Amino acid sequence: MPTYTPPLKDMQFLLHDLLRITASDVPGYADLDPSFTGAILEEAGKLAAEVLAPLNAVGDRQGCRLENGVVYTPDGFKGAFGKLKDGGWNGLDLPQEFGGQGLPYVMGTAVGEMMVSANMAFNMYQGLTHGAISTILAHGSDEQKATYLPKMVSLDWTGTMNLTEPHCGTDLGMIRTRAEPQADGSYAITGQKIFISAGEHDLAENIIHLVLAKAPGGGEGTKGISLFIVPKFLVNADGSLGRRNAVACGKIEHKMGIHGNATCVMNYDGATGFLVGDLHRGMRAMFTMMNEARLGVGLQGYAQAEAAYQNALAYAKDRLQGRDVTGAKNPNGPADPLIVHPDIRRNLMDQKSFVEGARAFVFWGAHLIDRSHRTGDTAAEGLISLMTPVIKGFLTDKGFEMTVAAQQVFGGHGYIEEWGMSQFARDARIAMIYEGANGIQALDLVGRKLASDGGRHVMAFFEMVKAEVKAHDGDARMAGFAEPLKAASKQLQQAGMFFMQHGMKNPNAALSGSYDFMHLMGHVCLGLMWTRMAKAAYTALDAGAADREFLQAKIATGRYYMARHLPACAMHLARIETGAEPVMALDAAAF
Amino acid sequence: MPTYTPPLKDMQFLLHDLLRITASDVPGYADLDPSFTGAILEEAGKLAAEVLAPLNAVGDRQGCRLENGVVYTPDGFKGAFGKLKDGGWNGLDLPQEFGGQGLPYVMGTAVGEMMVSANMAFNMYQGLTHGAISTILAHGSDEQKATYLPKMVSLDWTGTMNLTEPHCGTDLGMIRTRAEPQADGSYAITGQKIFISAGEHDLAENIIHLVLAKAPGGGEGTKGISLFIVPKFLVNADGSLGRRNAVACGKIEHKMGIHGNATCVMNYDGATGFLVGDLHRGMRAMFTMMNEARLGVGLQGYAQAEAAYQNALAYAKDRLQGRDVTGAKNPNGPADPLIVHPDIRRNLMDQKSFVEGARAFVFWGAHLIDRSHRTGDTAAEGLISLMTPVIKGFLTDKGFEMTVAAQQVFGGHGYIEEWGMSQFARDARIAMIYEGANGIQALDLVGRKLASDGGRHVMAFFEMVKAEVKAHDGDARMAGFAEPLKAASKQLQQAGMFFMQHGMKNPNAALSGSYDFMHLMGHVCLGLMWTRMAKAAYTALDAGAADREFLQAKIATGRYYMARHLPACAMHLARIETGAEPVMALDAAAF
Repeated sequence: MPTYTPPLKDMQFLLHDLLRITASDVPGYADLDPSFTGAILEEAGKLAAEVLAPLNAVGDRQGCRLENGVVYTPDGFKGAFGKLKDGGWNGLDLPQEFGGQGLPYVMGTAVGEMMVSANMAFNMYQGLTHGAISTILAHGSDEQKATYLPKMVSLDWTGTMNLTEPHCGTDLGMIRTRAEPQADGSYAITGQKIFISAGEHDLAENIIHLVLAKAPGGGEGTKGISLFIVPKFLVNADGSLGRRNAVACGKIEHKMGIHGNATCVMNYDGATGFLVGDLHRGMRAMFTMMNEARLGVGLQGYAQAEAAYQNALAYAKDRLQGRDVTGAKNPNGPADPLIVHPDIRRNLMDQKSFVEGARAFVFWGAHLIDRSHRTGDTAAEGLISLMTPVIKGFLTDKGFEMTVAAQQVFGGHGYIEEWGMSQFARDARIAMIYEGANGIQALDLVGRKLASDGGRHVMAFFEMVKAEVKAHDGDARMAGFAEPLKAASKQLQQAGMFFMQHGMKNPNAALSGSYDFMHLMGHVCLGLMWTRMAKAAYTALDAGAADREFLQAKIATGRYYMARHLPACAMHLARIETGAEPVMALDAAAF
Repeated sequence: MPTYTPPLKDMQFLLHDLLRITASDVPGYADLDPSFTGAILEEAGKLAAEVLAPLNAVGDRQGCRLENGVVYTPDGFKGAFGKLKDGGWNGLDLPQEFGGQGLPYVMGTAVGEMMVSANMAFNMYQGLTHGAISTILAHGSDEQKATYLPKMVSLDWTGTMNLTEPHCGTDLGMIRTRAEPQADGSYAITGQKIFISAGEHDLAENIIHLVLAKAPGGGEGTKGISLFIVPKFLVNADGSLGRRNAVACGKIEHKMGIHGNATCVMNYDGATGFLVGDLHRGMRAMFTMMNEARLGVGLQGYAQAEAAYQNALAYAKDRLQGRDVTGAKNPNGPADPLIVHPDIRRNLMDQKSFVEGARAFVFWGAHLIDRSHRTGDTAAEGLISLMTPVIKGFLTDKGFEMTVAAQQVFGGHGYIEEWGMSQFARDARIAMIYEGANGIQALDLVGRKLASDGGRHVMAFFEMVKAEVKAHDGDARMAGFAEPLKAASKQLQQAGMFFMQHGMKNPNAALSGSYDFMHLMGHVCLGLMWTRMAKAAYTALDAGAADREFLQAKIATGRYYMARHLPACAMHLARIETGAEPVMALDAAAF
């Protein structure tokens, strides 16, 4: 059975050596000294490792069940949810006004990673609530905030997002769910939504659904869409629960993974809903929710890879098989441990260098969000908006790939469910699909984000990378980082140039390369992170830091990423530069 | 629910336009004219599509169950197995002397692909029998052949391979199963074997286990290993079934996929076994079995990708979502079909160009086996021996990757088991693991096959590619094939050169790049196949062939592979040329 160990040292390194948060000018960061963040991370890590991780396999094996409209979560989930609630973990980075602790988003992200690594399916009940809260915070009325937020922050109530319908997911302009205005100012919501994570369950007193629907007069396509709050139980004026609303779970899906989370078909049958934000401006509000959700999904990608890696590493050290070709390492045993073999080492280094780079990328992204929210820094806002599809698309693709790599270390045992490695891969697979399938992330990046604000944000990113490379000019120790980063960023710019030159005449020339561009940019971002981490590690070493082995391993791991992952950039560029012709050569009928 | 359509036209193209089998000097090939092969493929395709494919999801859902030592296969498997048997499909390419039809291996391979695409788990009952038959044919005594083969060829009895034990899979030198010589010349076999596919089931009267065990006096490690026949029921002198042998299934595994196949723990408790071949030479005999099995597993990789691709394509043509950015293609509908979008097209072309290239590679490999077996061509034998780890490792890695890509086309529906796309990925996953995990294939390729016979076979392969490139010199139509093939094969040679220069001093310098080399070589092989297929298609077009659209699509698909897959070669070379240092930099303790 897999185990989980919170990567506390790595997280502290990112917060304090890489991001140097206490020295940052972001309000709230000054309080985050190492002992304070260490105490929070340790406490959260305990909950993750001791309470959530042991339930991961239970959730996978049992799944959820629907009986007479009630969804029952797996054994132990209710107790664990109570502990999550009692610890106030959901409110960690939410406003004190509604019962939260008001800490920065970067702290919520670090805590979130541990919960997701330990038990992804379980954590979704809380994760979707967090996203729903953010949406109400950004777009709800004061009355709505007062009515819903305190109970959602405390996890007495949970939240959901309702977008997809059977005939449309990506293309929301086609949704059929209707919202009819009522005399009292509410709306009657009617329609069917599918793939609703945590749509129904037994963990909370009430569930607050955020639902996209079409109200009369909004016109065709996405323009006609509005966002509504539809509570499972209506809330009385005094805050107590009133009558059951006309919304019900019609079915739970049998899925490849995340069995512990109930994925529901939700039927709205004239349910009472309350408009959130402006009429017919629902897409805008929904994007608030989706941006946060996409960061969270990118995090799921590498968090599953982290959990899988930890177990693959332990197995590679433990399992005796074959001999080191350069001489026995365990001469008194019947064989050497797997980790002596170069190809096993390659596999483990692929995983390790990806996970640590990805974590830095997401923590940096969370820092940009804090900067944007807490200081109104529009450059940071533009940058994180540019990075969102890369974080979501690249980290979930690679995260899944790494769970498969980790499974491979186990040989045949990796394929047997009892060992738990299959679950990491099956669970991680969904992250490539939901909150906008990764092809849509690539489209968002190339078709929208590159050109947004006249291309200002992507130019700023190029400048940032250029400055990073320049900063290490003449530093021999950093050459193994700065040089590959420079080459990769040139390839990224060349790809962008190709899109500009050809995309005007033929948009397909750019869109045929969108997926490769997303991956190329992902590698450049992780290359940037590794360059900064290496520099931070050298700085700490030079300053006489105590944990030299940890810092030296950090540098060696980064060097691996630069040497062995960044060569993918040239491949992606070559694919991009073939343009639309090979991709679009066949008529649909000729397939 | 997925469907399956046998790719008859593609197969006929390979047999007659690419391999030109009737014009070949291989005994038995002259009879294989297009109408004869067409009739066989059509008949086999009918069984695959109409009988086996509908049981694929049933097998996944129900799995096998063990009750009182008896394993029950899923509903319908028994009836389908009867039809497979009645059709004589198992004996298609087996000697007439034992009841087979004596057709070439290439025909067995084509038929096998369809069975595997339709229902991989089901087909394993037959596939392992086929492998066991080959081993007895190659190493058994005349009496053993007479006793076992007729019933195995007819599928009245099935076969298994027993190698792995709980503490060792790859490292067979550690096996503990013992064989004690008995007074009557038989052996008493005692030990536990795990991961035994089709180890116990209700489809056949008897099961013939081939078991690796250690008999006294053989010395340490793999040298002491011998191979034994251990029948479930002993066979009387008159061929009737005698007493039940002391072998039993102790458990069936709960796996990620191939649920329809029983993966058994087999307990041997002084079971009666009969030596196959020479005492203490069991590894040699086992390799016969494993080489055929490895080709079959490579076939599983692309055959699952084929089935997944067919369904992804159908969904992409059917599902309406979004609009073609260059102008609506379905203006009267609510949206355009998915296939209009460049990134969906890219995904489908990745799949299609891989599957068709992989099929050519495996058919060519089967042709080399025929040439080796039927004409004693040692060059062909050396070449297929070199190619075996590439076929197994590269095609199963890529095959799995493509089933995941196919699943992605379905968005959220791809993750729901009801749609059947998850099963293709879960089933395909095992092919990367069994019959030697792919890391072992890479080790076999770089550590053994490259240098075998003084490197003669790999040099012959380089010459073959060089000759292919040269043959198209000055042919403008073929430039899109010959040029990328030339570049890729230079990269492959450069990688080989790197191993020679550095591997002598430090074997880890070669072994750290073994996995990348396997992939690099796989791309060169598929590039070679596509070059030949393109030439064959042009030749047919020039000769006025009727099905112009099919041939033109073949060329366009090949052009995609050359333009969009071959750029991976440079990436693999760059990774290889970083050598052992980044891979081995960390001490095991520093991970």
